[in-house]
Amino acid sequence: MSADRKAVVLLSGGLDSSTTLAIAQAEGFDVHALSFDYGQKHRFELEAARKLAEVAGVSRHVIVSLDMSQFEGSALTSDLAVPKDRSLTEMESTIPITYVPARNTVFLSVAMGWAESLEASDLFIGVNAVDYSGYPDCRPEFVRAFETLANLATKSGVEGTAKWKIHAPLIQLTKAEIIRRGNELGVDYALTHTCYDPDDEGRACGRCDACLLRLQGFAQAGLSDPACYRIRA
Amino acid sequence: MSADRKAVVLLSGGLDSSTTLAIAQAEGFDVHALSFDYGQKHRFELEAARKLAEVAGVSRHVIVSLDMSQFEGSALTSDLAVPKDRSLTEMESTIPITYVPARNTVFLSVAMGWAESLEASDLFIGVNAVDYSGYPDCRPEFVRAFETLANLATKSGVEGTAKWKIHAPLIQLTKAEIIRRGNELGVDYALTHTCYDPDDEGRACGRCDACLLRLQGFAQAGLSDPACYRIRA
Repeated sequence: MSADRKAVVLLSGGLDSSTTLAIAQAEGFDVHALSFDYGQKHRFELEAARKLAEVAGVSRHVIVSLDMSQFEGSALTSDLAVPKDRSLTEMESTIPITYVPARNTVFLSVAMGWAESLEASDLFIGVNAVDYSGYPDCRPEFVRAFETLANLATKSGVEGTAKWKIHAPLIQLTKAEIIRRGNELGVDYALTHTCYDPDDEGRACGRCDACLLRLQGFAQAGLSDPACYRIRA
Repeated sequence: MSADRKAVVLLSGGLDSSTTLAIAQAEGFDVHALSFDYGQKHRFELEAARKLAEVAGVSRHVIVSLDMSQFEGSALTSDLAVPKDRSLTEMESTIPITYVPARNTVFLSVAMGWAESLEASDLFIGVNAVDYSGYPDCRPEFVRAFETLANLATKSGVEGTAKWKIHAPLIQLTKAEIIRRGNELGVDYALTHTCYDPDDEGRACGRCDACLLRLQGFAQAGLSDPACYRIRA
């Protein structure tokens, strides 16, 4: 593969997307990172995304504003309380209210548009179907359906000048495996932001689904989590 | 069907989407209209969308801002010149530079998110595969692929509480048939904006692909176009 083959990488600023970015670079892609200001309450992740993109030395980092808080229904964008202290069994059995309707579909669609204008046809997304919160748009069948769509929705796909590929390199990894892989690639997890419900200083709660999965992942990887928590779980 | 079954209708402010809205209402749907401020140069269409939504008496009209002009490559969002005076054969043979990468995919994705928060699963889009400008995301196979995606990407689709349907009622109609149908349903086409390259007063150029297809449609329907042109074609 040419060393300057461009790819658009979705970068939330969290652990999974920063590891995905490092994997894309390790595979030789010229990374263009894309983040969204979508009315999320945990806006510290955007600052994290900025730092991570800078440290990784990506070619370009774009933050697109898209106000999804106009649409009610998710605890990530409204005043609904973020659930705390749920067991892994609870996480796996229901789709929680932190689910943002259509989020990954919207993010991939915009990434596809940017990629097409760059004459690229590779997208990276850090979805994970193992240690995840039960979101429908994190599953392999969703990723495959989007790939099919991309080849029908774009000028390059239809004209046959590109074969679109949605890379989801974490999809079958456990959180511990993701952390080990990122560690090998030199990801500085101190820069990442994971918590759905940080305090005003950006410190993590240690009790939401995202924090609990992260902490469990570091424990299982035998590594110490460098993130800043307001309560050590 | 229950008279209050909700649907999200993509409303650009043009002829096709305003006819689609009227069809959704005629089918008994409680219409929630969605427009996008995506950095388009022909911003008069947003004012048109506002008036059309108001006149139609929709339950809610939301304009979502999403700045796609950061991504280069389309004459609709950049300084590239809008092509003029092309023949229908030219329009049909190539995808023009007015193509905005991934536009309909992005619009449908956001519509899907809003619909899911409304507990709706019906989306309407006024794409047309007959008298169209050769855009890949206006074809039946694109619409079907998005429907498949919607059923995999959403909580309601995965839990089986909804079967998503992407309604594209214009997809097999000629422009003349669309205009006749809208006329029967009482659409006021004087309120619609079609031109890709209006002047400062919002008057249509009469020469871009969109104007030419519109004018031909009215001629073939045997009706007079009430739009305001700066040059009568």
